[in-house]
Amino acid sequence: MNTNRIEQLRSTFENLSIDSFLVTDTVNINYLSGFEGDGVLLITDKQQFIITDLRYELALEDYDNRFEIEFTRNYLGVAADIIEKNGLTVMGFESSISFLEYEQLDEELTSDLVSLTNIVEELRRIKDKFEQEKLVKAGQLADEAFDYIVGTMKIGQTEIEIANRLDSYLKSLGASNESFETIVASGIHSTWPHATVSNRKIQKQDLITIDFGYYYQGYTSDVTRTVAIGSISDELKKIYDTVLITQKHVISLIKPGCRLSELARVANEMIAEAGYGDYFNHGIGHGIGLSIHELPNIRTNDQNGVLMVGDVITIEPGIYVPKLGGVRIEDDILVVENGHQLLTDSYKKLMII
Amino acid sequence: MNTNRIEQLRSTFENLSIDSFLVTDTVNINYLSGFEGDGVLLITDKQQFIITDLRYELALEDYDNRFEIEFTRNYLGVAADIIEKNGLTVMGFESSISFLEYEQLDEELTSDLVSLTNIVEELRRIKDKFEQEKLVKAGQLADEAFDYIVGTMKIGQTEIEIANRLDSYLKSLGASNESFETIVASGIHSTWPHATVSNRKIQKQDLITIDFGYYYQGYTSDVTRTVAIGSISDELKKIYDTVLITQKHVISLIKPGCRLSELARVANEMIAEAGYGDYFNHGIGHGIGLSIHELPNIRTNDQNGVLMVGDVITIEPGIYVPKLGGVRIEDDILVVENGHQLLTDSYKKLMII
Repeated sequence: MNTNRIEQLRSTFENLSIDSFLVTDTVNINYLSGFEGDGVLLITDKQQFIITDLRYELALEDYDNRFEIEFTRNYLGVAADIIEKNGLTVMGFESSISFLEYEQLDEELTSDLVSLTNIVEELRRIKDKFEQEKLVKAGQLADEAFDYIVGTMKIGQTEIEIANRLDSYLKSLGASNESFETIVASGIHSTWPHATVSNRKIQKQDLITIDFGYYYQGYTSDVTRTVAIGSISDELKKIYDTVLITQKHVISLIKPGCRLSELARVANEMIAEAGYGDYFNHGIGHGIGLSIHELPNIRTNDQNGVLMVGDVITIEPGIYVPKLGGVRIEDDILVVENGHQLLTDSYKKLMII
Repeated sequence: MNTNRIEQLRSTFENLSIDSFLVTDTVNINYLSGFEGDGVLLITDKQQFIITDLRYELALEDYDNRFEIEFTRNYLGVAADIIEKNGLTVMGFESSISFLEYEQLDEELTSDLVSLTNIVEELRRIKDKFEQEKLVKAGQLADEAFDYIVGTMKIGQTEIEIANRLDSYLKSLGASNESFETIVASGIHSTWPHATVSNRKIQKQDLITIDFGYYYQGYTSDVTRTVAIGSISDELKKIYDTVLITQKHVISLIKPGCRLSELARVANEMIAEAGYGDYFNHGIGHGIGLSIHELPNIRTNDQNGVLMVGDVITIEPGIYVPKLGGVRIEDDILVVENGHQLLTDSYKKLMII
């Protein structure tokens, strides 16, 4: 499977006017080769080289023999040697490389250099059946963990305690690591879109936003729910309902061919019409997969992008009113031929604990 | 405190021939300003700007007023505007910036651009009393967690189970997140210097290497121990003793003024003399602090670097013999005026469980 991905990448060479491509992004290297250590991946017109160091010698001993393995402490120097020996003339490189590494390439390369953006990321965007299965499972674990954490949450517990319990439970279900630091934002903290956790104890009349993502066999989930402790004001209920109705409506639009900008535009419009336009200051969603943020980007100012079969995205509207309270609701959605499939599906009417 | 750090940085401007400095590394931004969100930090001759976006508006509402706060979705564009408005002529930037971001700076900046490496990292290297306290505590938690995990480890448990239990326990002690994915490498896996975890069940005659690091209030520990399940062969015992004697001897050399290359050289020599020179293929140690790998670098080919008061480093020799077994022992050490202070100090004679 991984060599198919490399063939797919190689098939772009002609259009890009390159005869070799240096992959430096760790996740992209893993996607293309399965290798997870430090190093770089050089793809020439005929071969593919994993360039790494001796710490990985044993792990690579019986590696897929379609890859050439080079051990060195100077990854980029060896890549330059290979380019020179093979008489290659134009090497593409990923623009996510550091400027420091670029300088070394610029100095040592005998070929021309072309900076390229989102080449492998575009391949990663469309998930195959194998990847979809892992994302489905990642979503199921997230749902299961949310049920658990809501069932065990009590007044007096701190945000950190709740986040740690959620983390432990997800790991006990078979998840590996969190893809970002779990957010449990209660009371006034719920009004910060990027709160994390604190020693604040949850109390009556709090809104609590829980946002978490966990890797399952390399693929992540990303889910948010906001719950209430005891009764909350009518205004907070209105905010909650606005976010919920917006989220459900935007999800209902998801199908192949739907403009990405349309998802963002509709969300902004619905929240603005309810009177909260000034209180929704982040994107409506993003792709997920091997990374917690990947393609497609979903932006109002992107006039061309459309959803495609195999996209996996989050939809996560939120309203954060200073000194009052914040609500965010987020699910993961797979785009399928006849529409979409929810990967996460926890209860989302206002839950009062 | 944070503005002192900025003054320290500003005092290097003259030598560097710059009149402004753009900080893009997230950890460096946090170190200098305390800000932890997305964005950049621009330090001019007179002012300091946190350039971020509206998601952080509330979190920054009552921020230290020595910082100017700018909200935008185009961090680098606003940095370029400030440079132009203030008539600044040479801006330093961190060479860890991506090539893509560099291109935007190169296009939009009215000033000259100078690429700089390890400027803030050199400031971070020396830990003040406040930072040392957190590193001491991070080390104590690691020791406590190691005692716990050894006490609960049993034949038949999987590597993943053991790693998850260690993670949960550390969080219950007050640690926040792991600084790298916890390693539990048993049996044949112990011979891979960079193994992580698997579903392998631990069994009799295994060597098990446990390597973990946890953040406590922003500062990390990094500890490794190798333990045996039941009796192991004389050869493995010899390997264990070689690693242990080497580690203790190298630590005994640590004091201000000791050459960094000397630590690496002595370790290589001792392991080679015992006949295992081919089986130690990684560095002898590295600095730790806000990051799991930071300055000082410890390399045989660095003839100038010396240890300084306030350095915090790991010492972690290892021997990995294919098909036989692997041993690594690692502790964290603070350099103090009259020598050194162990920050981690778990039992390290061969432990047979």
